[in-house]
Amino acid sequence: MTWKTAVAHIPYGGAKGGIGCDPRELSTSELERLTRVFTQKIHDLIGVQTDVPAPDMGTNAQTMAWILDEYSKFHGHSPAVVTGKPLDLGGSLGREAATGRGVVYATEALLRDYGKNIADQTFVIQGFGNVGSWTASILHEQGGKVIAISDATGAIKNKDGIDVPRLVDYVKKTGGVKGFDGGLDIDPNSILVEPCDVLIPAAIGGVLTRENANDVQAKFVVEAANHPTDPDADEILGKKGVVVLPDIYANGGGVTVSYFEWVQNIQGFMWDEDKVNAELKKYMTRAYEDLKEMSKSKSCNYRMGAFCLGIGRVARATLLRGWEA
Amino acid sequence: MTWKTAVAHIPYGGAKGGIGCDPRELSTSELERLTRVFTQKIHDLIGVQTDVPAPDMGTNAQTMAWILDEYSKFHGHSPAVVTGKPLDLGGSLGREAATGRGVVYATEALLRDYGKNIADQTFVIQGFGNVGSWTASILHEQGGKVIAISDATGAIKNKDGIDVPRLVDYVKKTGGVKGFDGGLDIDPNSILVEPCDVLIPAAIGGVLTRENANDVQAKFVVEAANHPTDPDADEILGKKGVVVLPDIYANGGGVTVSYFEWVQNIQGFMWDEDKVNAELKKYMTRAYEDLKEMSKSKSCNYRMGAFCLGIGRVARATLLRGWEA
Amino acid sequence: MTWKTAVAHIPYGGAKGGIGCDPRELSTSELERLTRVFTQKIHDLIGVQTDVPAPDMGTNAQTMAWILDEYSKFHGHSPAVVTGKPLDLGGSLGREAATGRGVVYATEALLRDYGKNIADQTFVIQGFGNVGSWTASILHEQGGKVIAISDATGAIKNKDGIDVPRLVDYVKKTGGVKGFDGGLDIDPNSILVEPCDVLIPAAIGGVLTRENANDVQAKFVVEAANHPTDPDADEILGKKGVVVLPDIYANGGGVTVSYFEWVQNIQGFMWDEDKVNAELKKYMTRAYEDLKEMSKSKSCNYRMGAFCLGIGRVARATLLRGWEA
Amino acid sequence: MTWKTAVAHIPYGGAKGGIGCDPRELSTSELERLTRVFTQKIHDLIGVQTDVPAPDMGTNAQTMAWILDEYSKFHGHSPAVVTGKPLDLGGSLGREAATGRGVVYATEALLRDYGKNIADQTFVIQGFGNVGSWTASILHEQGGKVIAISDATGAIKNKDGIDVPRLVDYVKKTGGVKGFDGGLDIDPNSILVEPCDVLIPAAIGGVLTRENANDVQAKFVVEAANHPTDPDADEILGKKGVVVLPDIYANGGGVTVSYFEWVQNIQGFMWDEDKVNAELKKYMTRAYEDLKEMSKSKSCNYRMGAFCLGIGRVARATLLRGWEA
Amino acid sequence: MTWKTAVAHIPYGGAKGGIGCDPRELSTSELERLTRVFTQKIHDLIGVQTDVPAPDMGTNAQTMAWILDEYSKFHGHSPAVVTGKPLDLGGSLGREAATGRGVVYATEALLRDYGKNIADQTFVIQGFGNVGSWTASILHEQGGKVIAISDATGAIKNKDGIDVPRLVDYVKKTGGVKGFDGGLDIDPNSILVEPCDVLIPAAIGGVLTRENANDVQAKFVVEAANHPTDPDADEILGKKGVVVLPDIYANGGGVTVSYFEWVQNIQGFMWDEDKVNAELKKYMTRAYEDLKEMSKSKSCNYRMGAFCLGIGRVARATLLRGWEA
Amino acid sequence: MTWKTAVAHIPYGGAKGGIGCDPRELSTSELERLTRVFTQKIHDLIGVQTDVPAPDMGTNAQTMAWILDEYSKFHGHSPAVVTGKPLDLGGSLGREAATGRGVVYATEALLRDYGKNIADQTFVIQGFGNVGSWTASILHEQGGKVIAISDATGAIKNKDGIDVPRLVDYVKKTGGVKGFDGGLDIDPNSILVEPCDVLIPAAIGGVLTRENANDVQAKFVVEAANHPTDPDADEILGKKGVVVLPDIYANGGGVTVSYFEWVQNIQGFMWDEDKVNAELKKYMTRAYEDLKEMSKSKSCNYRMGAFCLGIGRVARATLLRGWEA
Repeated sequence: MTWKTAVAHIPYGGAKGGIGCDPRELSTSELERLTRVFTQKIHDLIGVQTDVPAPDMGTNAQTMAWILDEYSKFHGHSPAVVTGKPLDLGGSLGREAATGRGVVYATEALLRDYGKNIADQTFVIQGFGNVGSWTASILHEQGGKVIAISDATGAIKNKDGIDVPRLVDYVKKTGGVKGFDGGLDIDPNSILVEPCDVLIPAAIGGVLTRENANDVQAKFVVEAANHPTDPDADEILGKKGVVVLPDIYANGGGVTVSYFEWVQNIQGFMWDEDKVNAELKKYMTRAYEDLKEMSKSKSCNYRMGAFCLGIGRVARATLLRGWEA
Repeated sequence: MTWKTAVAHIPYGGAKGGIGCDPRELSTSELERLTRVFTQKIHDLIGVQTDVPAPDMGTNAQTMAWILDEYSKFHGHSPAVVTGKPLDLGGSLGREAATGRGVVYATEALLRDYGKNIADQTFVIQGFGNVGSWTASILHEQGGKVIAISDATGAIKNKDGIDVPRLVDYVKKTGGVKGFDGGLDIDPNSILVEPCDVLIPAAIGGVLTRENANDVQAKFVVEAANHPTDPDADEILGKKGVVVLPDIYANGGGVTVSYFEWVQNIQGFMWDEDKVNAELKKYMTRAYEDLKEMSKSKSCNYRMGAFCLGIGRVARATLLRGWEA
Repeated sequence: MTWKTAVAHIPYGGAKGGIGCDPRELSTSELERLTRVFTQKIHDLIGVQTDVPAPDMGTNAQTMAWILDEYSKFHGHSPAVVTGKPLDLGGSLGREAATGRGVVYATEALLRDYGKNIADQTFVIQGFGNVGSWTASILHEQGGKVIAISDATGAIKNKDGIDVPRLVDYVKKTGGVKGFDGGLDIDPNSILVEPCDVLIPAAIGGVLTRENANDVQAKFVVEAANHPTDPDADEILGKKGVVVLPDIYANGGGVTVSYFEWVQNIQGFMWDEDKVNAELKKYMTRAYEDLKEMSKSKSCNYRMGAFCLGIGRVARATLLRGWEA
Repeated sequence: MTWKTAVAHIPYGGAKGGIGCDPRELSTSELERLTRVFTQKIHDLIGVQTDVPAPDMGTNAQTMAWILDEYSKFHGHSPAVVTGKPLDLGGSLGREAATGRGVVYATEALLRDYGKNIADQTFVIQGFGNVGSWTASILHEQGGKVIAISDATGAIKNKDGIDVPRLVDYVKKTGGVKGFDGGLDIDPNSILVEPCDVLIPAAIGGVLTRENANDVQAKFVVEAANHPTDPDADEILGKKGVVVLPDIYANGGGVTVSYFEWVQNIQGFMWDEDKVNAELKKYMTRAYEDLKEMSKSKSCNYRMGAFCLGIGRVARATLLRGWEA
Repeated sequence: MTWKTAVAHIPYGGAKGGIGCDPRELSTSELERLTRVFTQKIHDLIGVQTDVPAPDMGTNAQTMAWILDEYSKFHGHSPAVVTGKPLDLGGSLGREAATGRGVVYATEALLRDYGKNIADQTFVIQGFGNVGSWTASILHEQGGKVIAISDATGAIKNKDGIDVPRLVDYVKKTGGVKGFDGGLDIDPNSILVEPCDVLIPAAIGGVLTRENANDVQAKFVVEAANHPTDPDADEILGKKGVVVLPDIYANGGGVTVSYFEWVQNIQGFMWDEDKVNAELKKYMTRAYEDLKEMSKSKSCNYRMGAFCLGIGRVARATLLRGWEA
Repeated sequence: MTWKTAVAHIPYGGAKGGIGCDPRELSTSELERLTRVFTQKIHDLIGVQTDVPAPDMGTNAQTMAWILDEYSKFHGHSPAVVTGKPLDLGGSLGREAATGRGVVYATEALLRDYGKNIADQTFVIQGFGNVGSWTASILHEQGGKVIAISDATGAIKNKDGIDVPRLVDYVKKTGGVKGFDGGLDIDPNSILVEPCDVLIPAAIGGVLTRENANDVQAKFVVEAANHPTDPDADEILGKKGVVVLPDIYANGGGVTVSYFEWVQNIQGFMWDEDKVNAELKKYMTRAYEDLKEMSKSKSCNYRMGAFCLGIGRVARATLLRGWEA
């Protein structure tokens, strides 16, 4: 996370920690007590200016609420010590949609740079979970034509653009895109090579490989998933002239809004949703400009540029803090 | 205060504490020393994230200044530990007018919902202290016609609208509305049953009772005072179709700006008066929307809706914080 | 600094402290270690709400970074404990130009008050270091005609207005204004008595004296340097009707943006440069209004008015905090 | 407790607090969790130098262990925050016998003052719980002749002295003194009026009343129980010339060894049992001397003398600490 | 004090601080409030392990009580933060006599080293304040013959030894030694040159000078006062073979018992007077041995030896703590 | 260490931590700085009541001094945070000899239990480093006949008893026992099987094995080294009837005096060497009694008894502290 937060230009680092257990095998009461004891043991190691936990696999907003409650016994009421909290305990508006919305803002910045805009492009999206569905919805809202979408159940395609809000309702009821009557069922395996302007892999990692990279027909790939493109594919796409917006930048909207949640807690003041989205847009757009400039100055692609940007920021700060004990 | 702050959607609870003494019998030096010793005893129980005193009967901005000074000896400079401070020590602009201004914003939201606006309505106001006079002045500013006003000295009436700024000057000089030449003297006891669109009781509690409720001619009652309407009157007004905006919501502008003062202190940054008023309007208007939606979904009046709203928020937060020790 | 920050209406006081050494004789490693040991000794005396160091002669952004790093070992990460930090460690955008920009905002407020504006005036600036060059550049940007500029190397003059951006480039290369081909070389000693509308001494103190004050031809003197006008000169200029904007107000832009840096650190949120500049303008303009009102009510000149304003604010706060132990 | 600890001359005050529940209706797990949550709520109000809980009715050494464990989560390992702990967690040797042993030391000091000693006196003891049985055992050890003992089950008498160690074994097996073959069964109601030198009520309060006080045949009454003598009885005994050693002094051995436990924890060093007993003797003997001197100087009995001693110490300390805030 | 405490081998340094005022001109209430405000300002600079105030000129046990009370508001009950407290608030038994008693122990160690003992020597004492009178009393108690004593009122002499207890009573009544019938009045100016074995200057500094040093007839001078011997006199006495026990060692009994008071407070356990005196003897005797060994190894007199001892200890500790930041 | 400290009955646990470096390759300045930075990183994890470092391989008293100095910057002067300090900074008298002296006290307790005493026994000691030489010296002092001693250079034997003080001097000069003229050189490999009453392996681990255990002729083995006896040898010796005093008990004198150092620092009061040794004897003797009783009650040898003793104490304390979060 350190490089991702550095690219997003937010004052965060990165660390992971956890308990070796399967939360699905524990009762709510057991989970709560386990979380509290864990918090008692680490309460001196986390903190508003030290390390701020947020939910990841196996934890959720309720877990953050318990950590907050237990931590506050030791340090007083400290809403900023965790992010991803429930709204009623200081969570941020707009956080649920944040990663998807950030993907759209990244795409918008990229397209504008190439003299294009969302309303005149076609999009193919792999994945229709939290990230994929919010990305699709917001692209649709902004006039983008989403022509193919897949998920674990199947894939559908509609050259005239899928009616995304209707699809969202359909998926809520049926659990998957398969069988949606607003398009044709296609082979989910072919989704990445569908003809389109912008391809957005928003499911799992490692989907673009040396096997299929040559067949990609999109001009732009925006990585909404974590590392969807393996190194071979990356090289192939580069040679083909496909522009790839790397995950380290493109899907940074989630952690950015986590940071906004922390800021709101520190300021003691909640932002309305418009403010959250406007700030997210400002952050994603500015990061795109930084990324572009870095890539240009280093004559490298965006992925390499993003690493240079992130590492450079951390290195500069480290040097400035000094070396002597 | 817990339910009021929950309705206002500010992250505050409610508590009261005090010293059994008559401040009018103590010298300023005695009051200061008493306040300091009191602060020494409770300094570990109050705090920026724990409990934030504000002035109430018998205390004022000077008292808050002393508490701040004494508290800061123990915990370092902590302007956010009290609100209602003097401006020179971190008080907020706009706080003096805040309750009255909040009453006007509440009224505005209510009227808009009924397709009306302040400029086309007539108002009767009982009480011309801090709340009543600011309410009257701001309604007047916005084009509202204030046709009757009472205070402890008497009541005046003017069908064409009282010249409120002139009345304010008059009261500053004479100490009461009685004898103001911009209207006719009327019986203060009849003020609540004067014909008008909006009746605003802004004096003491318990003024609308089973005795007079049936005679109320207003279509809207906005409770600027604390519990001006007793339960019998509430029922009668409800049956008559009079819409009552309950005190728990309507006069929440004061505590809301206290909260803004705390936010400004936490942020280390003072808001100008326009910002304070704009945020107050946003808070009052949003709370009206929440209140309306709750009342609709529960099919109840605004008073019951306000309680549901406040209690629901506290209950949700309590549940989320968890039960296990 | 106490009176200057009080005039600027920012919640800061003033204090100075240091180490008796010549930093030019120490290696970087020695400077770092000296700074760290110094910080270890004073870490309990400085603090976000206590005393916030900023660079002055012999120290710079790197020094602040070391203080921050060492202080944070004791009190946790505390970016707000120093200002004037490098951007990468929480410094503020716009800080470099802040004093010069503040001088321009002060000048603008003054001129507007006299029915004039920057675009229709001529300016003479003594000094072309950080303050002088930024003042000149921003005046030029806003259409002001800068007709003479001096520095330690010489002085140049151009009745049609000096091309400031070109001069900035020239000085970067040559180290001084002397020999710039966009104007005529003049005697640096005569710069203060050049005919112009606004004279801006932006170099060292004590340049306007009883020797030259009578020859000043400007209508306005804006003190960008610290105490450029000695008491005799002040009296002479006053009698001549020259309006002097005192240093205590006019060059307060630097400390004001230092304060903004502190606010941003406290809020955990960085302002973009437009926001910094807009707030600076608001602060400078409001302070001008306060200054003008005070001078009018006390029937005194701006210098005396500024002292009344600053001392009055500190005195009021002191009284309110109380006297009893 | 404040007066008792002042008489014992230990730096302790007195306070009581608790939870309204019946511990016999709670499981061990419930008791533990209740104790922990209670500790979380009061951890800032107790402390090594503030308030040191010890077991009383309904709590025991295990409860203290839980408080210690929970308190230490907040304040680091703090064995001195409670007394009456299990030996394995920092409890003191000799604490179980402390009250009884203190009664014997008090009796010894009293007798010596009257030219007598334990070995030449006869003793009657009411009560054979913790205090009574330890008192009896230690008197026996020192050569005292214990001629009658009662408990809830009955009473026994043996003019030649009861074999206390054998009685202790007997009671361990049978649960009561009744039926012990080393003496004659007598009416427990008559125990207080048995002929003897020293009468030691060591059971419950209020046993010596106007009904039986005149029939008391002992020359000395040592109050091992709390307030066994009511005011009427006190007066009657006084007139008869019976010397009463008041509970406030005589049974202070328990709290004194609690204090020794605290001292050992503070010093980080455990005393062996001989050291505990020797210090207890020193404290009891010195307190007797103080008591005697006070009673003589005030010409009052020991009970009144004890109150004068305790209140005087607290008053002197209070005055010295000062009055100004 | 740093060298004195190092010679005494107690873990203390030395510092002085105060308020510029004349305590005799202030009421008790003013003194208390002044002391409290002073304590509020320095409470972070003093502390049980940092700096421990004790009374000096113009302050007394009551002052220490106020400091303790005020300090404890900030840091919790902290009896060890001051020494010289009243007994009722944690002062040490034996502190009043400590300096005088220490002088006697020092003298005893010195004499033993020369094959003599107190009982076979004659003593002359200049000064009969706290130090002089306790020194005289304890010497007398141990069989020493005190043959001359002076104070501000006069001097008396008795070859057979003054009856010190009777003189103490006499001085209590009359305020001075003058006129005591247990000896002959002599000229106070001649007291230092009276024939005797041991001369103990216990009044003010600078009394042994080049004027009278040659006339000193004692074999030993024990400096109970601070620097009674000026450098010239020191040299003269040395040449004459008079052995001088320097103040830095000889009158260190007071600060040593201050240290014992601190130890008792830290241990939470009061020492009885015998323990205090026995430890004082141990410290004085051990310090004499160290002093003698140092003087021997450096071939210097005791004064120089004492400085070597004290400075050496501080230097060794300083080196061991290290140099790197 | 946890089991060893539990056997010694001192309130300590056990943990190890370090830095991966070779101190012999670092300059003193580098070592100091490395130690300080290390301390900065762990200062929140160690502490007087948390974890108390002491020297082990590669560190020494100087290292402890640096840790103390650096730690105290963060937490105030805290001498008890490390043990093994230099005497000048709060180290304990008697610590150097402590392990050897403890071995002698252990041996004494064992022999007494078998009706023997040191003066009538012969001893063979393997190793003449800190532990071996102090053991030998103190045995010699107490009349024990040390008949063979080895070290890395060789071994000597003298049936009439080696003159240990003379050997100590010899080793100081020559660096080893080899060639000492007060005995015969023997093969160091045979030292463990020399005929004697008590064999004391005081060098390295694993010296008694299945190869030589059968040849051991001593009746008692006292393990001064860490685990000198491997499990096979342990079994063989047991079968032969050789009594083995296990290392976990026998060499616990060092950590016990470390604990005394900590106690002295906590109490703010230094013990003289006699007190240290007397307490050490008390601790070693009492632990022997506990060990013997445990071994008897469990019908096991001393090694197993020691483990039962240590684990039992930790287990009891753990259970008492409780299970619920």
